[in-house]
Amino acid sequence: MSLAQFGDQVSYVSAIPNNDLGFTALREVNKWGVNTDHVKVGGDKMGLYFLEKGASLRGGNIIYDRAGSAFSEVNADTYNWEEILEGADWFHWTGITPAVSAGAAEATARAIKIARERKIPVSCDLNYRSKLWKYGLEPKEVMPGLIQNTNIVLANEEDVAKYLGIVPQESNYEELEGFGKRSYSFISRMVHARFPHMHSVITTLRQTINASHNRWSGVVYNGTEFFHGQVHDISAIVDRVGGGDAFMAAFIHAKLKYRDLEKALNFGLAAAALKLSIPGDYNVVTEAEVDQLVGKQGVSMLSR
Amino acid sequence: MSLAQFGDQVSYVSAIPNNDLGFTALREVNKWGVNTDHVKVGGDKMGLYFLEKGASLRGGNIIYDRAGSAFSEVNADTYNWEEILEGADWFHWTGITPAVSAGAAEATARAIKIARERKIPVSCDLNYRSKLWKYGLEPKEVMPGLIQNTNIVLANEEDVAKYLGIVPQESNYEELEGFGKRSYSFISRMVHARFPHMHSVITTLRQTINASHNRWSGVVYNGTEFFHGQVHDISAIVDRVGGGDAFMAAFIHAKLKYRDLEKALNFGLAAAALKLSIPGDYNVVTEAEVDQLVGKQGVSMLSR
Amino acid sequence: MSLAQFGDQVSYVSAIPNNDLGFTALREVNKWGVNTDHVKVGGDKMGLYFLEKGASLRGGNIIYDRAGSAFSEVNADTYNWEEILEGADWFHWTGITPAVSAGAAEATARAIKIARERKIPVSCDLNYRSKLWKYGLEPKEVMPGLIQNTNIVLANEEDVAKYLGIVPQESNYEELEGFGKRSYSFISRMVHARFPHMHSVITTLRQTINASHNRWSGVVYNGTEFFHGQVHDISAIVDRVGGGDAFMAAFIHAKLKYRDLEKALNFGLAAAALKLSIPGDYNVVTEAEVDQLVGKQGVSMLSR
Amino acid sequence: MSLAQFGDQVSYVSAIPNNDLGFTALREVNKWGVNTDHVKVGGDKMGLYFLEKGASLRGGNIIYDRAGSAFSEVNADTYNWEEILEGADWFHWTGITPAVSAGAAEATARAIKIARERKIPVSCDLNYRSKLWKYGLEPKEVMPGLIQNTNIVLANEEDVAKYLGIVPQESNYEELEGFGKRSYSFISRMVHARFPHMHSVITTLRQTINASHNRWSGVVYNGTEFFHGQVHDISAIVDRVGGGDAFMAAFIHAKLKYRDLEKALNFGLAAAALKLSIPGDYNVVTEAEVDQLVGKQGVSMLSR
Amino acid sequence: MSLAQFGDQVSYVSAIPNNDLGFTALREVNKWGVNTDHVKVGGDKMGLYFLEKGASLRGGNIIYDRAGSAFSEVNADTYNWEEILEGADWFHWTGITPAVSAGAAEATARAIKIARERKIPVSCDLNYRSKLWKYGLEPKEVMPGLIQNTNIVLANEEDVAKYLGIVPQESNYEELEGFGKRSYSFISRMVHARFPHMHSVITTLRQTINASHNRWSGVVYNGTEFFHGQVHDISAIVDRVGGGDAFMAAFIHAKLKYRDLEKALNFGLAAAALKLSIPGDYNVVTEAEVDQLVGKQGVSMLSR
Amino acid sequence: MSLAQFGDQVSYVSAIPNNDLGFTALREVNKWGVNTDHVKVGGDKMGLYFLEKGASLRGGNIIYDRAGSAFSEVNADTYNWEEILEGADWFHWTGITPAVSAGAAEATARAIKIARERKIPVSCDLNYRSKLWKYGLEPKEVMPGLIQNTNIVLANEEDVAKYLGIVPQESNYEELEGFGKRSYSFISRMVHARFPHMHSVITTLRQTINASHNRWSGVVYNGTEFFHGQVHDISAIVDRVGGGDAFMAAFIHAKLKYRDLEKALNFGLAAAALKLSIPGDYNVVTEAEVDQLVGKQGVSMLSR
Repeated sequence: MSLAQFGDQVSYVSAIPNNDLGFTALREVNKWGVNTDHVKVGGDKMGLYFLEKGASLRGGNIIYDRAGSAFSEVNADTYNWEEILEGADWFHWTGITPAVSAGAAEATARAIKIARERKIPVSCDLNYRSKLWKYGLEPKEVMPGLIQNTNIVLANEEDVAKYLGIVPQESNYEELEGFGKRSYSFISRMVHARFPHMHSVITTLRQTINASHNRWSGVVYNGTEFFHGQVHDISAIVDRVGGGDAFMAAFIHAKLKYRDLEKALNFGLAAAALKLSIPGDYNVVTEAEVDQLVGKQGVSMLSR
Repeated sequence: MSLAQFGDQVSYVSAIPNNDLGFTALREVNKWGVNTDHVKVGGDKMGLYFLEKGASLRGGNIIYDRAGSAFSEVNADTYNWEEILEGADWFHWTGITPAVSAGAAEATARAIKIARERKIPVSCDLNYRSKLWKYGLEPKEVMPGLIQNTNIVLANEEDVAKYLGIVPQESNYEELEGFGKRSYSFISRMVHARFPHMHSVITTLRQTINASHNRWSGVVYNGTEFFHGQVHDISAIVDRVGGGDAFMAAFIHAKLKYRDLEKALNFGLAAAALKLSIPGDYNVVTEAEVDQLVGKQGVSMLSR
Repeated sequence: MSLAQFGDQVSYVSAIPNNDLGFTALREVNKWGVNTDHVKVGGDKMGLYFLEKGASLRGGNIIYDRAGSAFSEVNADTYNWEEILEGADWFHWTGITPAVSAGAAEATARAIKIARERKIPVSCDLNYRSKLWKYGLEPKEVMPGLIQNTNIVLANEEDVAKYLGIVPQESNYEELEGFGKRSYSFISRMVHARFPHMHSVITTLRQTINASHNRWSGVVYNGTEFFHGQVHDISAIVDRVGGGDAFMAAFIHAKLKYRDLEKALNFGLAAAALKLSIPGDYNVVTEAEVDQLVGKQGVSMLSR
Repeated sequence: MSLAQFGDQVSYVSAIPNNDLGFTALREVNKWGVNTDHVKVGGDKMGLYFLEKGASLRGGNIIYDRAGSAFSEVNADTYNWEEILEGADWFHWTGITPAVSAGAAEATARAIKIARERKIPVSCDLNYRSKLWKYGLEPKEVMPGLIQNTNIVLANEEDVAKYLGIVPQESNYEELEGFGKRSYSFISRMVHARFPHMHSVITTLRQTINASHNRWSGVVYNGTEFFHGQVHDISAIVDRVGGGDAFMAAFIHAKLKYRDLEKALNFGLAAAALKLSIPGDYNVVTEAEVDQLVGKQGVSMLSR
Repeated sequence: MSLAQFGDQVSYVSAIPNNDLGFTALREVNKWGVNTDHVKVGGDKMGLYFLEKGASLRGGNIIYDRAGSAFSEVNADTYNWEEILEGADWFHWTGITPAVSAGAAEATARAIKIARERKIPVSCDLNYRSKLWKYGLEPKEVMPGLIQNTNIVLANEEDVAKYLGIVPQESNYEELEGFGKRSYSFISRMVHARFPHMHSVITTLRQTINASHNRWSGVVYNGTEFFHGQVHDISAIVDRVGGGDAFMAAFIHAKLKYRDLEKALNFGLAAAALKLSIPGDYNVVTEAEVDQLVGKQGVSMLSR
Repeated sequence: MSLAQFGDQVSYVSAIPNNDLGFTALREVNKWGVNTDHVKVGGDKMGLYFLEKGASLRGGNIIYDRAGSAFSEVNADTYNWEEILEGADWFHWTGITPAVSAGAAEATARAIKIARERKIPVSCDLNYRSKLWKYGLEPKEVMPGLIQNTNIVLANEEDVAKYLGIVPQESNYEELEGFGKRSYSFISRMVHARFPHMHSVITTLRQTINASHNRWSGVVYNGTEFFHGQVHDISAIVDRVGGGDAFMAAFIHAKLKYRDLEKALNFGLAAAALKLSIPGDYNVVTEAEVDQLVGKQGVSMLSR
């Protein structure tokens, strides 16, 4: 939905149950201008999550209720990826999908394979979730194969530890001003080195002062250089769910537009920072709003 | 409404359409103890604005819908200013009024003229709004004549540039601790020098850390001296609309009470700072609440 | 209610009117697992308070409406304290109770006496409220007798001045880093010295940056040593009512569990800090949530 | 407030505590154009009631919390009735006032006496409330004296039984089509006969089909004739509190305007019927809206 | 939007201002699956209306604020009707459109002309609104020309009086059981006779018991026969705005599907009856839900 | 919960997941005074349903999401029924339980068996739900065995058709005034005859005028006589979910208290009628409120 707000043509490939909960969700996606022609309708259950929003010193909490959801019932043959990816400039997937069911993991694998064959760039937000992966396979059995043909990944320490067994030692941490000891450099190099088709590795840096006040930045590594992004001090947070998705949507948009990793990183970080001021789990800011924060002009003023 | 909360007798001169929206607005003004006997009832349309409240790094936004409003249809003869100003101690107008229509500008001119004849102090919040001034006249054609007989103005850089063509050069900026480079000194001197009846020029200083966190202060210049006001660090902002109006109401109240510019400035700043904690676009704090913040005693405690 | 959330068996001794307001209040207490078998049902009036929540630079305000409440009609014979305290490990009372009526003060005295006879530890949050104590007796006539047999008190400057006439002189203040000049040391020593059964005196330290941003810490004195607790910087406050009660509940729980004053203090401070993120006037956090903030691990993150 | 909506100048004589609850209530009264210059400010407690709205077959319920209210503390000397009633065309009181306290009863007596001396018509809604009258005097000791100088009363069976000991026997009931057996004729005659200054006696007829569906009508007796009013079938009731007050306000307005009992009755019944469609306990309909229902033209249509 | 819920491909031709109010409205239309490719974006003002919902005996009220709206600024050349109507099976317009501005009337005329040339059936809800038609032309100067090439109209007494000067005399009224004296037969014949391309004339019959309880039915006349529709007794109305639009959408759907006037009438009436149970001004029921009410099986039960 | 409001000691035997959704549900049950010591805590999923409330002519709709719920994972050994039923006066189960899973059906069978052995009366609301029974067994394979040892059943046509294959022929219908053709007599006799331990068979009679207006009554058959209950005309329905449960709770309470089937029936019907005025799916009325409706005195009045 965020990509559509930036003016991109975007198609959402998912599954909904054949009931009013599913249709209502689909209408919400349509409302923001996203194509849903490839969404599968079938099954009985809407995947749900229950969110306790954090505030001040109290962190948030999520209870997932996704077992048996319509989406968990997809498999390698559910979608016609040849048709879906026809003419596409980019394919993005997230680590939450293969965490839901073996079928969902297979559908992801098929999609990545076909995207690769057609030379469509593939990105992934690794997004490890400890409360998922309940269907019998370990992340380490599934994820390396999917990452193999992915070109850009958003990765953090927990992701690479759980998916790839890459665990930094004390000597792999370096001091990053304002963020303390961080291992992003080690992680990025390791991930880049391991996968031959990897174009760049992104790490977001998040410092949680409290649940209502974070500092966010990020680093991207292209195998040669590290680009450090703008630091955003974000107090008075409204809803922090969806910050990572907001980043990726904006990164993809800017990468396709500017063909420049650093610009893409900064556009992504500014979009994510704005997302934290918006209730709900998707971003609805426009390109002009993001550009204003990248340029830092007139930020947060009342326009009248 | 803020002046009435401070215990002053105050009359609001405006116009409402002859329908339930107008009557409802009028009742809200009456509720807070403001005389509305001179409000004109007529026309079809209520002037409206739609506010998107800012939060965190996302600034707010306003859509005006005032074209053709009941108020835009007033003219020089709509109000009997001699009667309205009978016995008045002060007359205040805002730059938004002449921005709405030629008739509204004429009504303002007539009011200022009669106030001047009766030696009633006249104040103005210059309040330039880029989204208004759509009726054919430029601000520069209208405002200088109105300011001519005004004695106290609240002015900022954009106001004086648009209204009077006064634009500071780089050399006119001075460093003000905690607020960066500012041109208030140059602006105040220029405005004071240009208008012979000008008693003092006020500049508010606002530093926008983000939409939920501002620092506010202000300076008043009486042609001889600059008085610097208290600095308020205002985080957890609830609604920043109406801060300027809250300042002017409190400034007028304290100026009439203490006959002291510095006290008026500090009372005004404290009132404005409290306004930012109150939803809606008018201030409802009492004199005791403002005094407590001026004196900084027991501020923000829970009284029980 | 907070103690019940920590898993303790707890009984609330109070009084409600015999109407649906009373029953609704009682059900809310039951809902959180508190025994209310000893609550007296009778009288016509529910004690009420009306809260204006503070925000930003505007402090909160409370209007009490407790005169003639069901609770104010209790007396020394209302409760069978022998039965109530049978098997109890702790008895806690608050200074608000004797402030409501002479009968409530007598009921408190009776309870304390019986607890003392049975060697049950007695604690008290002194909690002076200037808007109560309207029934004819002065705090100084009532409180010393009650404190006489109390073992642990939570005291601040205003409490000890009003109850015991202990008023620090300038020389009794010492600089405490981050909290300015404080007299907690003098107060604690004076209170401890005056009452022979006093085990320890707790002082909470609260720095009000604004109504939405406080820093909290605390000190406990056992007659020999002072233990300083963790400092919590609490911005984005949701509701500050109930912070003191939250502290005491958690302190009691941890004191009984660990038999260690410093651990009890830190558990109490963390619980109180979390309370400020929760709407309503009682705390509902679990022991695991508090422990996480004491240990400072993963604080304020979103768990998913 | 209803009278002010009909365009009458009206003054509300009451008392509020000197706190924000009182001021807020006063502002609400001012908002609707009622003069409150004679409201006494003082005391600590706002009189309250808690309403459980009925719906369908479940009746509503009210818990009063008025003991010790600011209003209960008025007495015969609180108000300067000579000044208040200067130039008045009508004085209205309700049976709830003397039910609150001896002082309130005395204040009522004084007001009625002065109104009588000045030949101002006095009306009363007898309004017996079983949950009030707690201050030591019986209704029968107080009310006859007050009714003595009252000219128009709104009375029902319970009122006259409790106040005057007038209890209909079975033979005093007559069948009224659509309302079953009713004793209004007997009651009206008895009340009229007993008080020499009585001009007319009004009885409202209410048939409760369920809490959301009533049929309302009324009868007025001038000592000679009975006038029967229009019957209103009122389903989809929004809030039935305030129907009696709405009737009296409209009756008084129309009686003063038309000098015709039947017109006053029908205007009152239509206003009361409309009140039941409005949330809150006072009526805000305009004269035109009531006239439309009296005339039954275009009733309940959407005007556009 | 209702047609899209029935599964039809439908395009909405309108205009929105180039601001967030306009985009938000457009997204709401998109959400329900309506094509908005032909909506013009431009101008400053969103057309608005303010609705006071009626309830019980209190009728509703609407305040229009449409002067100067984006939509009022369209003209004969704004839309490419040839392209818009390419492949269309039906064109529907409403009498509100030519009531807004001369340009809107011209745009309507152009659309009808092109639809006629292509033999696309044209329908119209005459929808006279006394609060519109403010731009200088009388309805009688505009509407006959537009109706000339319209094939199916929804007409009531006020419509044909204002648009065509057709006013029934007393002899033109006939008793219709359950609806009193009605002139639908006269009106239908007169309208049908006057316009050579008229296929059928529909009259809805609405009996307003109160604002929350209506009885609805309708009659359609094809120049030869009258078909009377099902009567719906609709109590507990949730929102009566949009009933006429709901009828027309469902009528068009069923007419295209069944090619049968009576079936179309009954499908339309059932859909309109259901609309009155749904908040908002458009209908979102499905075909299955409407069919269930037409067939009267299992109506209003809870499905579980 | 309804039984607890009537003053009965009641224990709820169910299962919740080990997360905050489960604990919150449990607290709600505790709040109303129900013992939950036997509720099993375990599993991941809270059983859910999504309710679209009906209104006017639009019926409601429910989407179940119960597959894999904590409750579905119980089995014959989950509960210690000997202990649970120790000292019980009644055991009630509902047809929804065996519809959820084979384990739930087994747990029910075990409970009924032990209740039977101890001569505890067993009742059941047959409650057939077409959207459940998804786990592989047909209702007919499960229910007869459970009903075998049940003494009182609440049954309707669909229940006995689906569970027992009892389908009335046209000749089995009789006209019941105000409810049309009904087969309750046939059904009751057939069910009573088939099960030797059956004490009585209850049928509720519900006439759905629309979703907001029902007429409810009921009949009970003891094998010899039919007792017809009071008819309740229930308009302005607030929430019709839970009417059957409200009936059964009140029936059980009154049956135990009065040992009279007819009194139990009428108490149950009045309680169910009141439930329809209360939001949520459980009844919270008191015995006094129900008695008032059984006796029809002062029904639906406002008590003050």
